[in-house]
Amino acid sequence: MKKLERLYEGKAKILWTTDSPEHMVQEFKDDATAFDGTKHAVVEGKGRFNNAISSRLFEMLRDEGIRTHFVRKLSEREMLVERLKMLPVEVVVRNAAAGSIVKKLGATEGMRFDPPLVEFFLKNDALHDPLITDDHIRAFGLAPEGMPREMRKRALQVNDVLRRFLAGRGVDLVDFKLEFGLKGGELVLGDEVSPDTCRLRDAATGRIMDKDRFRQDLGGFMEAYGEVLDRVTQ
Amino acid sequence: MKKLERLYEGKAKILWTTDSPEHMVQEFKDDATAFDGTKHAVVEGKGRFNNAISSRLFEMLRDEGIRTHFVRKLSEREMLVERLKMLPVEVVVRNAAAGSIVKKLGATEGMRFDPPLVEFFLKNDALHDPLITDDHIRAFGLAPEGMPREMRKRALQVNDVLRRFLAGRGVDLVDFKLEFGLKGGELVLGDEVSPDTCRLRDAATGRIMDKDRFRQDLGGFMEAYGEVLDRVTQ
Repeated sequence: MKKLERLYEGKAKILWTTDSPEHMVQEFKDDATAFDGTKHAVVEGKGRFNNAISSRLFEMLRDEGIRTHFVRKLSEREMLVERLKMLPVEVVVRNAAAGSIVKKLGATEGMRFDPPLVEFFLKNDALHDPLITDDHIRAFGLAPEGMPREMRKRALQVNDVLRRFLAGRGVDLVDFKLEFGLKGGELVLGDEVSPDTCRLRDAATGRIMDKDRFRQDLGGFMEAYGEVLDRVTQ
Repeated sequence: MKKLERLYEGKAKILWTTDSPEHMVQEFKDDATAFDGTKHAVVEGKGRFNNAISSRLFEMLRDEGIRTHFVRKLSEREMLVERLKMLPVEVVVRNAAAGSIVKKLGATEGMRFDPPLVEFFLKNDALHDPLITDDHIRAFGLAPEGMPREMRKRALQVNDVLRRFLAGRGVDLVDFKLEFGLKGGELVLGDEVSPDTCRLRDAATGRIMDKDRFRQDLGGFMEAYGEVLDRVTQ
């Protein structure tokens, strides 16, 4: 498949059209950003690690029966994906409280959610990705009827599978963000699943193994991503 | 019934205990506040207008079969109410977009919601009353199981009744905020229903007849409240 034009460039990825209208190349950049893009760095190796981790996790999810856009890994920084009509909604699943739910809603850091908590956020940088409800998604026409329920169900399935897979490798899944798209009316998991989009902790020590190392200037940022790659491919 | 101790003083009201453990006196103050209390004024007549309007609207809601805490108007600024265990949740019903949904979610001012949109907010000044979902209410134990659905249903009933009542008096109900409490496990409407908590527009001219006159420094603040009182008691 031939890579053609740059269709979209985000903070951490570039999407390229190909000679197949049904497929795109998703390229992972070395850029690290946080806090609505106000913190930024270029970190050698990040694109490579996220592509490898995300490819492995998408394969694993596919093997567990979850429909994703992933086709195959193409190169160090590139994967081939199906072209979706993305929904402007970020879906967050929380097994424990960290990040925005602590800061904005006053949850106690580390508080467990059982059942896991699912949240929707409007994908809109200018509005700082605000929390929205099923009713907002319907009222603003952000997704077809019934999709909030379907996204919630699918996100919880991903959580079940991913949490179990990571637990078997000594990694605790605190929370993660998913983005879905539609293909012929069907809901398909898109974007990436990586330490940029998941909060991961070493199950034995609690050590942070995700982008929080960058957000909080903890050092050992890429070493942590390298270790996540080792664990998920072991 | 005898007024005893000041139990709670908020921005616009004081609650007093009485010699009946089942009842309280709700006193309406002349204080007007906005923007998390950062804007404040004392406006002669406001307590009196809000008490009279709220008493009339609670009576009307009761006549329409909606369970409220209202017992009777006691004096110019006081009403007798049942004592409830208040839920720390504000319930907002929107027939059209105004205020926070425009600023925070980017809705187009005046956009109609059909069906009306119901939102829940955590009652917490320090956190600036953030939007929350049914799942947050359950996860944080903010209300007994099933209450979010019950509050939504009840709020939409209030909207149906109030909207029709006001429309018959030439007033358009844009949105409003309710607070509910529990009495013996039963959900009861508490707080107030007034131009402090409702966005009201003159149906013919669109003229603002609520606290937005204060928020936006439009002048004629108490004249508008006086006119709302005339309309609801005509």
